[in-house]
Amino acid sequence: MSLQFHRVALVGKYQDSTSGLVADSTREVIADVAGFLKDQGCEVVLAERTAEATGLRDYPARDVAGIGTECDLAVVVGGDGTMLGIGRQLARYGTPLVGINQGRLGFITDLPLGGYRQALPPMLHGEYEEDHRSLMLGKVMREGECVFEAYAMNDVVVNRGAVASMVELRVEVDGHFVANHRADGIIVATPTGSTAYALSAGGPLLHPLVPGWVLVPIAPHTLSNRPIVLADPVEIVIEIVGGRDASASFDMQSIASLHHGDRIVVRRSDYRVRFLHPKGWSYFNTLRAKLHWNEGGV
Amino acid sequence: MSLQFHRVALVGKYQDSTSGLVADSTREVIADVAGFLKDQGCEVVLAERTAEATGLRDYPARDVAGIGTECDLAVVVGGDGTMLGIGRQLARYGTPLVGINQGRLGFITDLPLGGYRQALPPMLHGEYEEDHRSLMLGKVMREGECVFEAYAMNDVVVNRGAVASMVELRVEVDGHFVANHRADGIIVATPTGSTAYALSAGGPLLHPLVPGWVLVPIAPHTLSNRPIVLADPVEIVIEIVGGRDASASFDMQSIASLHHGDRIVVRRSDYRVRFLHPKGWSYFNTLRAKLHWNEGGV
Amino acid sequence: MSLQFHRVALVGKYQDSTSGLVADSTREVIADVAGFLKDQGCEVVLAERTAEATGLRDYPARDVAGIGTECDLAVVVGGDGTMLGIGRQLARYGTPLVGINQGRLGFITDLPLGGYRQALPPMLHGEYEEDHRSLMLGKVMREGECVFEAYAMNDVVVNRGAVASMVELRVEVDGHFVANHRADGIIVATPTGSTAYALSAGGPLLHPLVPGWVLVPIAPHTLSNRPIVLADPVEIVIEIVGGRDASASFDMQSIASLHHGDRIVVRRSDYRVRFLHPKGWSYFNTLRAKLHWNEGGV
Amino acid sequence: MSLQFHRVALVGKYQDSTSGLVADSTREVIADVAGFLKDQGCEVVLAERTAEATGLRDYPARDVAGIGTECDLAVVVGGDGTMLGIGRQLARYGTPLVGINQGRLGFITDLPLGGYRQALPPMLHGEYEEDHRSLMLGKVMREGECVFEAYAMNDVVVNRGAVASMVELRVEVDGHFVANHRADGIIVATPTGSTAYALSAGGPLLHPLVPGWVLVPIAPHTLSNRPIVLADPVEIVIEIVGGRDASASFDMQSIASLHHGDRIVVRRSDYRVRFLHPKGWSYFNTLRAKLHWNEGGV
Repeated sequence: MSLQFHRVALVGKYQDSTSGLVADSTREVIADVAGFLKDQGCEVVLAERTAEATGLRDYPARDVAGIGTECDLAVVVGGDGTMLGIGRQLARYGTPLVGINQGRLGFITDLPLGGYRQALPPMLHGEYEEDHRSLMLGKVMREGECVFEAYAMNDVVVNRGAVASMVELRVEVDGHFVANHRADGIIVATPTGSTAYALSAGGPLLHPLVPGWVLVPIAPHTLSNRPIVLADPVEIVIEIVGGRDASASFDMQSIASLHHGDRIVVRRSDYRVRFLHPKGWSYFNTLRAKLHWNEGGV
Repeated sequence: MSLQFHRVALVGKYQDSTSGLVADSTREVIADVAGFLKDQGCEVVLAERTAEATGLRDYPARDVAGIGTECDLAVVVGGDGTMLGIGRQLARYGTPLVGINQGRLGFITDLPLGGYRQALPPMLHGEYEEDHRSLMLGKVMREGECVFEAYAMNDVVVNRGAVASMVELRVEVDGHFVANHRADGIIVATPTGSTAYALSAGGPLLHPLVPGWVLVPIAPHTLSNRPIVLADPVEIVIEIVGGRDASASFDMQSIASLHHGDRIVVRRSDYRVRFLHPKGWSYFNTLRAKLHWNEGGV
Repeated sequence: MSLQFHRVALVGKYQDSTSGLVADSTREVIADVAGFLKDQGCEVVLAERTAEATGLRDYPARDVAGIGTECDLAVVVGGDGTMLGIGRQLARYGTPLVGINQGRLGFITDLPLGGYRQALPPMLHGEYEEDHRSLMLGKVMREGECVFEAYAMNDVVVNRGAVASMVELRVEVDGHFVANHRADGIIVATPTGSTAYALSAGGPLLHPLVPGWVLVPIAPHTLSNRPIVLADPVEIVIEIVGGRDASASFDMQSIASLHHGDRIVVRRSDYRVRFLHPKGWSYFNTLRAKLHWNEGGV
Repeated sequence: MSLQFHRVALVGKYQDSTSGLVADSTREVIADVAGFLKDQGCEVVLAERTAEATGLRDYPARDVAGIGTECDLAVVVGGDGTMLGIGRQLARYGTPLVGINQGRLGFITDLPLGGYRQALPPMLHGEYEEDHRSLMLGKVMREGECVFEAYAMNDVVVNRGAVASMVELRVEVDGHFVANHRADGIIVATPTGSTAYALSAGGPLLHPLVPGWVLVPIAPHTLSNRPIVLADPVEIVIEIVGGRDASASFDMQSIASLHHGDRIVVRRSDYRVRFLHPKGWSYFNTLRAKLHWNEGGV
């Protein structure tokens, strides 16, 4: 079988620190994976920030637009957060992503660092499972103008302020009034995000093939409220009607100090994110492993 | 606007008693609605069992196949249970249904008995909202043979026996192992069924436009189990692997004394049920009214 | 039956505004209740802040200590929040409280404004149900010193900061390690508080006679976490071990910007709050009315 | 330190089969433990059924009453179920129990089979933690007569029949009406039972020192229902008011085919069960180990 992905971008974990420096171990890991990809016959490109952070100069560096237009594949070394961050940005280019996790197994980064040398070669030659994830485009509208806009792969979260006792939110779906929620907040999650914060707040799991969002209230004041799953062509509007200092987060990209009357508008993006997994990958195996199903019996 | 539905079938509530007799009030209601439909210019047909139960002889009677092939619309007088029962049977013919509730508001029977004279005429002339509901086809397979088969609009429920402490169920989706559940049982619900038993067992709401099922374990022995929503083209298999005297119900159509190794197989039916509602109908309004949202605040 | 409570303090709703002014309607209500109590033969005292806010000068004014040492009963006009506030302060004096609610029925303010003239006289003469509520004393310890201390009738809440994704909390009970929680926060609630924020976060109800606290994690990252009820002689310690900008609230009395290593220590107070209710009062009736039990059927 | 328990009863797992035979491994285990106790200086007595099942004739055999009146300690080899069974019967005699688990760690049987030789000697000489568990006495009253009576250490469960869609239950506490539940059933659990079926049905954990019961509805039709914790001096009455074929179970001791009007009455027993644990035992450690807390992170 011939090589399917010729030009491959390598993306490392974004740094939390502002120093721009990375641990020697990370530099070494990136250099190792790059060397391995080169040995497989790939042309290797480094993400600009990864090149800067590691100081590796043996490969050309590209920004996200460069990766999107020039590369056939992005190999990401990091955790689920890194995958979500770069996945959101590459979605418009259709570039597929493979994830190598440095720590414990992720929901979407499923090649262990110790095992990528076995797992990657067949994938580079076309042996893989493809897994498409939907993406939300969220906007904050204030008096008819968009004051914030961002993509989200996991969720859009509207939250009360830290000192406020609650926020009051009016939810509409395609212009239909759904409910007024007095709560700590509300989460609109994609299937990808249904295993993240939405799950902590009591939401159901959504298989990635479900074309829907789930709306999960956080600590709602009304006992009869339940998570609701909506078909994803809808437009969801969440209006701030009460409470102080509410904020909105789109995959942790946040805008604080929302005003009464501000409307958070959530729609499906036209783009999808393409994740590649080794042959035989099963979403359910990952769920069981991550959520420790069948353990801790009553 | 001209009459859109010319030949209209009228279906009453199925009787619980075996006597076949109905209360005078029901006979009167059916006679009233039939007369009203005739006055609107419709040709009225009675469901065979409704004709028998009420003794009304002024209209021709038809069985379900006759209604399905000859009538343009079925008007159902009863509750949600009556609607589900006749809806399942008419699905293959594509006959639309309208529901008049005799008691309290239903999720799908939304014309009040006191208000049908205002609500029906515009609907008969084409002014309505159409609401399609998916249907499941469930089978019980034993040693390779199908021993039970039924359609379900609400849910397929696999339950422990009354004296057993639990049932152990192995769930597969499209051939992928999902989980082994030790529990009181498991529910596979349609969006329609997501407001019924699945909701009692802790499941989320699924909007009718969501092309998915929800799998809800009942009193699972593992704390980390959560309801999971699946895209509806999948085949779900639930195998009895432990416990005594398990049963399976498809919208309350039941088979008891299941054996170890029996497999309950659930797929989407090719048919859908068509419900008609008055213009301006909103699924969310019904939810709020039925579930008493925004009341009972903490 | 002779008058049991001779000197009665009248306490109005604390003002949200800083102006100190109250609506004319409130002034009128306080004047009415005061006049009514005088007609019943009681000596009426106004809470100092109520006297200031209403401008009523016909009755002597007392601060909380004065009420506690000189009065036999406090009649509170307001909502549950007003009752909790003054209840916490009067607990050390053992002064019983009766609540007249101005708006909708409260959990503990159960005389409607329109009905107090019927309900109060028998209570003033000794016909009542007595309902004792436990009180928590919470402290924040930093490097061995107490930096904040407050009583709570409802709950002690430790919360993540507004921009933090979570807080990590180490919980100990009587020196035994219980769990490390990564969550939005944690609530320690009294039976009184079990119908407030703890209920929104998924906690159980605790009858006021249960000598216990309930520990409820808010949106915990571990699926197997469950609320736990503890016997109330215990000392609960919650240590901040991760996350930024955590805060602690004792019935909404807050301290922000907690440090890693800060320990929130919660114990039962030696004082209890005494609420009086009309004869025939039932805790369960209030629950049903407030939580809309038996409505909103699936 | 001198021997504290001189006469020690040894109790094995009750057999599921009716044959009365046990596997050779069990016989060997019982013989081993008996020999070990004898070597420690104890006088060993076998439970009658254990003597019969194992065929061991080297030690005198006693029925439960004999153990209760003559022995200072019961050492139980089995699982939690065995402990609950014998614990219920020995409660009236005040005989303390120690559990050796043959399989995985239990909530109350905490000496591993491989470790009892290290753990037991200090306990026999008085080095242990004592853990008292409350016991419920349940009765079924029909037309004023008691038709069934049993003790329960875990729970009293009232359940719908296998083919019924639900049961309707009227709950009263000390003569006060609490609620009408339409549900699959209801559980009244002790703190010991709060980690069993009640937990599966969504109930909270109750620490063994909490003098209370928890009432947990199973799949209730009303969304606003929540588990409620009651102080344990109360009398709880559950009346069957609707549904067919309801049953009641007291720790799995069952009565089926209950009638409408039957009343299940639950009170605290005057007896308590005494469990002994090795020094340093912590209830919370067991919880974490059994429920896999802090694993399966979202």
